[in-house]
Amino acid sequence: MTRVTLLESVKNPDDLKKLAADELPRLAGEIREFLVSKVSRTGGHLGPNLGVVELTIAMHRVFDSPRDPILFDTGHQSYVHKMLTGRQDFADLRRQGGLSGYPSRAESEHDFIENSHASTSLSYADGLAKANKLRGDTDRTVVAVIGDGALTGGMAWEALNNIAAGRDRRLVIVVNDNGRSYSPTIGGLADHLASLRMTQGYEQVLDIAKSTINRAPVVGPPLYEALHGLKKGLKDAIQPQVMFEDLGIKYLGPIDGHDEQTVEKALRRARDFGGPVIVHCLTQKGKGYAPAENHEEDQFHSLGAFDAETGVAKPKAGLQWTSVFSEEMVRLGAERDDIVAITAAMLHPTGLAEFAEAYPDRIYDVGIAEQHAATSAAGLAMGGMHPVVAVYATFLNRCFDQVLMDVALHRQGVTFCLDRAGVTGDDGASHNGMWDLSILQVVPNLGLAVPRDAARLRELLREAVAVDDGPTVVRYPKGGVAAEIEAVGHVGSMDVLRRATRGGHSEDLLLVAVGSMAETCCEVADRMADQGIGVTVVDPRWVKPLDPALADEAARHSVVAVVEDNGRVGAVGDAVARALRDADLDIPVRTFGVEQGFLDHAKRDEILAEMGLTSQDLARRLTETVSRHTERSMEDEPAR
Amino acid sequence: MTRVTLLESVKNPDDLKKLAADELPRLAGEIREFLVSKVSRTGGHLGPNLGVVELTIAMHRVFDSPRDPILFDTGHQSYVHKMLTGRQDFADLRRQGGLSGYPSRAESEHDFIENSHASTSLSYADGLAKANKLRGDTDRTVVAVIGDGALTGGMAWEALNNIAAGRDRRLVIVVNDNGRSYSPTIGGLADHLASLRMTQGYEQVLDIAKSTINRAPVVGPPLYEALHGLKKGLKDAIQPQVMFEDLGIKYLGPIDGHDEQTVEKALRRARDFGGPVIVHCLTQKGKGYAPAENHEEDQFHSLGAFDAETGVAKPKAGLQWTSVFSEEMVRLGAERDDIVAITAAMLHPTGLAEFAEAYPDRIYDVGIAEQHAATSAAGLAMGGMHPVVAVYATFLNRCFDQVLMDVALHRQGVTFCLDRAGVTGDDGASHNGMWDLSILQVVPNLGLAVPRDAARLRELLREAVAVDDGPTVVRYPKGGVAAEIEAVGHVGSMDVLRRATRGGHSEDLLLVAVGSMAETCCEVADRMADQGIGVTVVDPRWVKPLDPALADEAARHSVVAVVEDNGRVGAVGDAVARALRDADLDIPVRTFGVEQGFLDHAKRDEILAEMGLTSQDLARRLTETVSRHTERSMEDEPAR
Repeated sequence: MTRVTLLESVKNPDDLKKLAADELPRLAGEIREFLVSKVSRTGGHLGPNLGVVELTIAMHRVFDSPRDPILFDTGHQSYVHKMLTGRQDFADLRRQGGLSGYPSRAESEHDFIENSHASTSLSYADGLAKANKLRGDTDRTVVAVIGDGALTGGMAWEALNNIAAGRDRRLVIVVNDNGRSYSPTIGGLADHLASLRMTQGYEQVLDIAKSTINRAPVVGPPLYEALHGLKKGLKDAIQPQVMFEDLGIKYLGPIDGHDEQTVEKALRRARDFGGPVIVHCLTQKGKGYAPAENHEEDQFHSLGAFDAETGVAKPKAGLQWTSVFSEEMVRLGAERDDIVAITAAMLHPTGLAEFAEAYPDRIYDVGIAEQHAATSAAGLAMGGMHPVVAVYATFLNRCFDQVLMDVALHRQGVTFCLDRAGVTGDDGASHNGMWDLSILQVVPNLGLAVPRDAARLRELLREAVAVDDGPTVVRYPKGGVAAEIEAVGHVGSMDVLRRATRGGHSEDLLLVAVGSMAETCCEVADRMADQGIGVTVVDPRWVKPLDPALADEAARHSVVAVVEDNGRVGAVGDAVARALRDADLDIPVRTFGVEQGFLDHAKRDEILAEMGLTSQDLARRLTETVSRHTERSMEDEPAR
Repeated sequence: MTRVTLLESVKNPDDLKKLAADELPRLAGEIREFLVSKVSRTGGHLGPNLGVVELTIAMHRVFDSPRDPILFDTGHQSYVHKMLTGRQDFADLRRQGGLSGYPSRAESEHDFIENSHASTSLSYADGLAKANKLRGDTDRTVVAVIGDGALTGGMAWEALNNIAAGRDRRLVIVVNDNGRSYSPTIGGLADHLASLRMTQGYEQVLDIAKSTINRAPVVGPPLYEALHGLKKGLKDAIQPQVMFEDLGIKYLGPIDGHDEQTVEKALRRARDFGGPVIVHCLTQKGKGYAPAENHEEDQFHSLGAFDAETGVAKPKAGLQWTSVFSEEMVRLGAERDDIVAITAAMLHPTGLAEFAEAYPDRIYDVGIAEQHAATSAAGLAMGGMHPVVAVYATFLNRCFDQVLMDVALHRQGVTFCLDRAGVTGDDGASHNGMWDLSILQVVPNLGLAVPRDAARLRELLREAVAVDDGPTVVRYPKGGVAAEIEAVGHVGSMDVLRRATRGGHSEDLLLVAVGSMAETCCEVADRMADQGIGVTVVDPRWVKPLDPALADEAARHSVVAVVEDNGRVGAVGDAVARALRDADLDIPVRTFGVEQGFLDHAKRDEILAEMGLTSQDLARRLTETVSRHTERSMEDEPAR
């Protein structure tokens, strides 16, 4: 590996602007080496960043960031942008104290959107462009970079429809079209864009576009007509343009996104147009790094540490939650031909690839379109199927209304499987799955199950798909499954995991363990039992609806506590407390979970420890609470 | 008015199919008379239904409902469908026990979607068509009826993208294009559709389309090319077609939606095509009833009782919440030029029309696109503006993720004003604004205010727009404002509304009154005080974050109760209980609100009474609770 020198000289976009055009290919090469070298050590998003090297260089040479804000949709493709805006220390990427894996406003004035939920950039851009117009800042241009995958999300459509209405607002939409979101983008739009890549005339289109860009004074009619004049075989290739122009947005492209000088020219013309313009760039995910380019599944979209020479990833230790789900889905698919599966552009990461391979007619990848995932599932259920929608927990927020109104109100049997639930850590605030246990509580007719280990995931998934008159949800964390914990007894439908009795009519503490916090709760019980405190640990398995037996069991204890790895507000703790109040049981309740806030990126364990969700801290706090309340009871008792 | 006879003879779609074509205009006339006569007495959605009379007749003659499901997007245009499927008793429309104002699966097997949130029909249709395909029911067609307004919603785009990918699935999309959602539809798509209506060649297009439909064996290329051959002046008119066909969905139209025979022919061709087809029908909202046709604002979209002869509505009694908001916004707009307003296709109903008139540069109607409303507001805030997004409370669910991630995570100063919050009643389950106080609790950095009367709405709106580092929400009910209740004191930022003391160190009950339940809470306090119980009523005004002074005040009482008109789960009651637990205050808490479920349509007061949210019921239940706990305290006290 050569010594990185040109890259080091670029401390900010002004330095970049000073480079001669013929130095840029070398800079691009250095950036790619840097990316492969750094990400191979820390893990992160590699493929998307290798694909936008020239695009990002061109944007920072043409626009005046941050005066011209550059908004990255989803944000995992912003590494190059970071490197060009003064951030080249990637040693602790995505680790506590290190650079975020997404844009971060705390890191730089060049960053605007730090939310990695897709399809938002065009809406932000529309708002910023409106503000520029209102303030009379008519020389500023807002730039949004959005992938073809994110264009399948409904928000993008809503934004395009509005952007088109503001013909005098300066806004450049760079479509980074690599034919993939996570894995290949699907749907009518994608087929269309794909036809462009597959046509014999692909190179020819690029050449024509290039010469047209060099010639045309502004985008619009000349390019439009030039492309319309092409021979029939390329007709499909030009249709995306027609579609965007139908909406009233000027279109420029398609452009080879790896030809930096052509991209610059297109961006300059777009910038000078004075209204909304789409610049359609064709790029290749993983560009310039053979192991990524040749990686069928996802071109190294996002991965852990790997060998930079070979591209071989370090294997994940132990059984993963996702794999358990994946295996069980294949079994269920064999047993029941009414089970179908739905993913929102996350076939592999959610573990549905095996199901798709086994039952290709029963898998639907709907694009980055959680709303459609939920409501089309309701339609499938109305049609007699039982859909399983597998989605990251954080992205379920995108279809809350659809789960509530379209599935639950209509009492349709749809099962949602929420992967990456709870604290996920290194992807930062927007990837933590810490909201679902709260917002799903309000949904009538919905059942919510939280498995504590692999056996329970299998069991609860089976129970969930057996429900045909309302939505069911099964949620489980990222990473390796927790150790198996066998029940030592049952109370109603709940598993009893520990019963450390001190004898007598009642015990001190009922500890309600939610999902993967069961292991910690058992450790808490063991620690407290060692001090002579009577503790019962139950795993309700279904946290909604709560088994009425929970109140009866609670009545036998002096204090009730709930531990979960969701935000504390409105989650299982609040539900347990409400259930006891409603039963006129005024027992002290304490609820432990993630403090309600947006968490900085760090390891899951670091975050849980900071929140006091370790067995040491919990045992200490609960021992205090129990002491206070049992002392009081003991004071009261002899007085009667 | 003539006696309705033909309509009475149509008990079901089979009867309709037996009518001769020349009888249908008479039937259409009878349906319109029926609609005007009935809705003038009960109130309801008139304009949309007058616009789809011929369309609905044609659908039920061509398709075999319910085997071919007909899905109405939003559902307020389903009155004619009800009349043709055995439901002609409109006497108690939208009243308890009467017909629902939307499709209702409990009413008829011909109804599928009862949810009145927009843009869902295409997703349901995609799911149903997939199920048909999987089950081998290849002779069944799924029909979705969607307005041009609902097409501006992102879900519609997500669905179209997926529908296009299923070329062998039988699905007919009837676009009911009346150029309006509630009021005129906006945005790039709308401009496009509008250009069609405004062109000199409008009638010509319809004629050409008509002859093409008569001629063409299937839709697709022949029609496409026929229309492409038109002269330049009509170029704009054909572009919607190109856009849809770009996605891979066959397009048929535009068609005069009031020419029943032409619509029938188009639908038959669409049905026989064997894949997804869009049938683009041009209709007129309010068609056939002059007062509606001539009504500028919304063509009698939805209204209360009115005089059938003149179309003059009965005036609303007293000051409306919406009017108070409207007035205050105009004042704020004059004081601060950074305040901008956003509506999602609800300019008049949310009370923003006056602001729009006063400050035409500072109002944005984004279409039926709540996601874009929220995130473009975040963009406007980043650009230095303070946006106020006015939306019905129930529709906020559509942008929960955007409020959380795009506004709150980014700490942008955006104010959401939620009209029609709480129990709204006669529009049924999907219109009750009973979710916001729960789901918004989980959003960090968000402030949530609930005014109890007009003065507090003005005051809290002002406090909300003064916050510039995070989202603020102000929510208020439908209808007339509650009686003004002056504070008798203050505790921290909370208003004390009653202090019925019985002397001594502590009082019996602290009653936390949320928003418009304040009046009921004061009545409860008065009833209980009459029985010698010491009651304090506080209105926290801001229910999130709760003032820490609440815990101190609670500590001075034996029992704490919270009354709100939101769903009980996860709302203010749970928040108060959590705040007390977190302060190690184990005081009995009781929480009262709407039972967590989907409510049948009825009057607001009827629903609240059924839920026990009257001052009588609350006083009775709270007196019991207070008695139990104060007796126990009194037993304990002398023993010490």
